[in-house]
Amino acid sequence: MKKAVVLLSGGLDSTTCMSVAKSEGYDVYPISFDYSQRHNIELGKAKEIARFFNVKDHKIIKMQNVGGSALTDDSIDVPEYQGDGFIPVTYVPARNLLFLSYAVGYAEVIGAEAIFIGVSAVDYSGYPDCRPEFIEAFQRVVEVGTAAGATGRVIEVKTPIIQLSKAETIELGNRLGAPYQLTTSCYNGRDKACGVCDSCTLRLKGFKDAGLEDPIEYEIK
Amino acid sequence: MKKAVVLLSGGLDSTTCMSVAKSEGYDVYPISFDYSQRHNIELGKAKEIARFFNVKDHKIIKMQNVGGSALTDDSIDVPEYQGDGFIPVTYVPARNLLFLSYAVGYAEVIGAEAIFIGVSAVDYSGYPDCRPEFIEAFQRVVEVGTAAGATGRVIEVKTPIIQLSKAETIELGNRLGAPYQLTTSCYNGRDKACGVCDSCTLRLKGFKDAGLEDPIEYEIK
Repeated sequence: MKKAVVLLSGGLDSTTCMSVAKSEGYDVYPISFDYSQRHNIELGKAKEIARFFNVKDHKIIKMQNVGGSALTDDSIDVPEYQGDGFIPVTYVPARNLLFLSYAVGYAEVIGAEAIFIGVSAVDYSGYPDCRPEFIEAFQRVVEVGTAAGATGRVIEVKTPIIQLSKAETIELGNRLGAPYQLTTSCYNGRDKACGVCDSCTLRLKGFKDAGLEDPIEYEIK
Repeated sequence: MKKAVVLLSGGLDSTTCMSVAKSEGYDVYPISFDYSQRHNIELGKAKEIARFFNVKDHKIIKMQNVGGSALTDDSIDVPEYQGDGFIPVTYVPARNLLFLSYAVGYAEVIGAEAIFIGVSAVDYSGYPDCRPEFIEAFQRVVEVGTAAGATGRVIEVKTPIIQLSKAETIELGNRLGAPYQLTTSCYNGRDKACGVCDSCTLRLKGFKDAGLEDPIEYEIK
């Protein structure tokens, strides 16, 4: 059975990717990261989601971060959503690059032929490492910079929701039975989602636009 | 003063890069990695080298590895040098990719405009992540996948020894006063270098071809 490494944060997008990878016939190997994120509640959610999908192995990488982000540094506050057009302080330097780099190494070790990452260039927070040009550039790195690539084995970086809005992502996941009740998206990482950070704002709007009810609890909705 | 992040392993190549970066007028910020490498003696050496260069900060990243290499897995033996033309079991999946990814994040945080990495495509162990095409592909990732790149700030990945043989590297470092007496290259990580692994073989040949004496101690030479 063909294998895929799936970047699983415990959020809505990566959970949708789990469902998509399964629907495409992959044996899924989720990988999650403990990078001292403020919202590390998501790791517990990731474990529940991995269990839901009955995976053989769930790799959790303890990752030291290099600082400089509101998501990893308690001295920087998480702002409310401030609209498009700039890179917010919740940007974590080189985060997706590091996530994908670990995923590639793991894919080499287990012999996976695909990596799924739930980035979207439509409804997103303005992070440069969510854009198609980043994924394309990274794919080239995989081809020329790994033993797999150098020996002709393909590891494809798959981005099934990169051109989908949040509402379209939710519709897709809903169709595939993605367990959204187990997911968390809030940057603040309290028991209930705050309802006002970038991530909550995008999620709530997505469910509303999709005409579906968000199954998780909020402080403000 | 312009800043550069320098990947510092404690070996000969990265120490040469420290000297090159200094000679080009950079304030150097070394970054080293603790990835459970068999030869973790090199971290102590890296610290001594950082002290030699009187750096403001030496970042040491504790990095969980994904397995599959003789350098990180005690159940896989380090082989003697077996010649060119294949990728040896000492290849660590995605290692340079992970190192560079951390370096990029760190460069973003401290506002560095260059990253130095001591890869060589001439005298090397056959690792795909030492080749110019990998570095070029990674440079593109930096440009399109980071906040620095997206806002027009350049972080250049510099590879001063990529076209140099080991002997030429040693001549360069020797000219710049690189502290080779503090370096270690052996994969086996014992007190004295083994003298027979890939890395020792290349190093000893380099000094011989350069007509210089290697200042470190060997078990077999």
